[in-house]
Amino acid sequence: MTSHVYQLLEEYMLSCMGDSAHDKEHVYRVLYSALEIAGEEPDVDYDVLICACLLHDIGRGEQFENPSLCHAQVGSEKAYRFLREQGFAEDFAARVRHCILAHRYRNNNVPETVEARILFDADKLDVTGAIGIARTLFYKGRVSEPLYSVDSQGRVQDGTEDEKPSFFQEYKYKLEDIYSHFYTKRGAEMARARRQAAADYYENLLAEVRPVYEKGRQALAKQVGA
Amino acid sequence: MTSHVYQLLEEYMLSCMGDSAHDKEHVYRVLYSALEIAGEEPDVDYDVLICACLLHDIGRGEQFENPSLCHAQVGSEKAYRFLREQGFAEDFAARVRHCILAHRYRNNNVPETVEARILFDADKLDVTGAIGIARTLFYKGRVSEPLYSVDSQGRVQDGTEDEKPSFFQEYKYKLEDIYSHFYTKRGAEMARARRQAAADYYENLLAEVRPVYEKGRQALAKQVGA
Repeated sequence: MTSHVYQLLEEYMLSCMGDSAHDKEHVYRVLYSALEIAGEEPDVDYDVLICACLLHDIGRGEQFENPSLCHAQVGSEKAYRFLREQGFAEDFAARVRHCILAHRYRNNNVPETVEARILFDADKLDVTGAIGIARTLFYKGRVSEPLYSVDSQGRVQDGTEDEKPSFFQEYKYKLEDIYSHFYTKRGAEMARARRQAAADYYENLLAEVRPVYEKGRQALAKQVGA
Repeated sequence: MTSHVYQLLEEYMLSCMGDSAHDKEHVYRVLYSALEIAGEEPDVDYDVLICACLLHDIGRGEQFENPSLCHAQVGSEKAYRFLREQGFAEDFAARVRHCILAHRYRNNNVPETVEARILFDADKLDVTGAIGIARTLFYKGRVSEPLYSVDSQGRVQDGTEDEKPSFFQEYKYKLEDIYSHFYTKRGAEMARARRQAAADYYENLLAEVRPVYEKGRQALAKQVGA
């Protein structure tokens, strides 16, 4: 890929990202991690991979505005149109489109090419470890969801059986379990190396807040009479 | 304090908090931690303390709307007015007002009573450890500030010399240093017990993202030619 083409793609990505600096840095982390993973995979088309990484989240704004939309679906079509308009070959644009469509954890589009599997893993890597914790807390702050739920007895819930959204719920339902969902050997290795950092953070936070509520409610009951 | 008075104060606090569940839980953590700290301090007026804890952040909304306002200043006056309107004695309302006015780290109002020192420490405790990390990331997400800054060479900055706001900058300028700013013995102890969790998280996050950029930019340079 020429630096001219790279800049064209990067500028289009930035124009889709609005003002959220962390989304932009997520894209660079995914691109850089993908290149590391690609070093251990055979027959990678780096032009498809770099293009797919740069453009993989350009449908985020649409999904944020309208949560019924899937950013992978929207972004894959946006990328295809942009690439065709810019004169890229149909085959190239279609391979990038597949990578973007298949990068999302929850949808039914399974990555079928090596580039799609690498993008999937590089994107999932950003949900692992300390960086996954940071991104989840950022998001929860943005949408004003709580850190944890408190039951009717005033006990802090650990997330395991939570029905309402919270950081602990997200950790238990998504972050804790993601380490077995990698396609590539290097992606899985990189994820495993980060696993303990996320687990430690969750355990430390739970160990800090639970006793505060337990002791605090007992102490309050002594001070507040009928 | 009767449970009727407690409910009156709690309801007023909740009415000032809007829909941000994490702000509400912050208030309960501060209240519960304050009661633990109070157990080792002499001559605490628990009614003043409980009231000041419940109402200490009721000026947050005003500061969020207009950042030139100080939530401690606004909240202390709101609390005083509310308490007087509800028939609390002038002396009681004034003592609560002092606690709230003096609870903020950055302003010049030093806590002069035992209740004010306890509130100050209980509030600062929520900036320590894993909970301090979580609250800072929540806030950064809400105001769309980045996790870290990247210099013109594409290197991730550790926050030490950052001029632009970021999570790493906040950690280095505020969170890392807060452990020596406690008035009470129990508050300082509780803070110290949490210190390592915050430091570990920061170090883990830096250790995850820095090499991604370093290796990634080298790998990208090999793929993107002139």
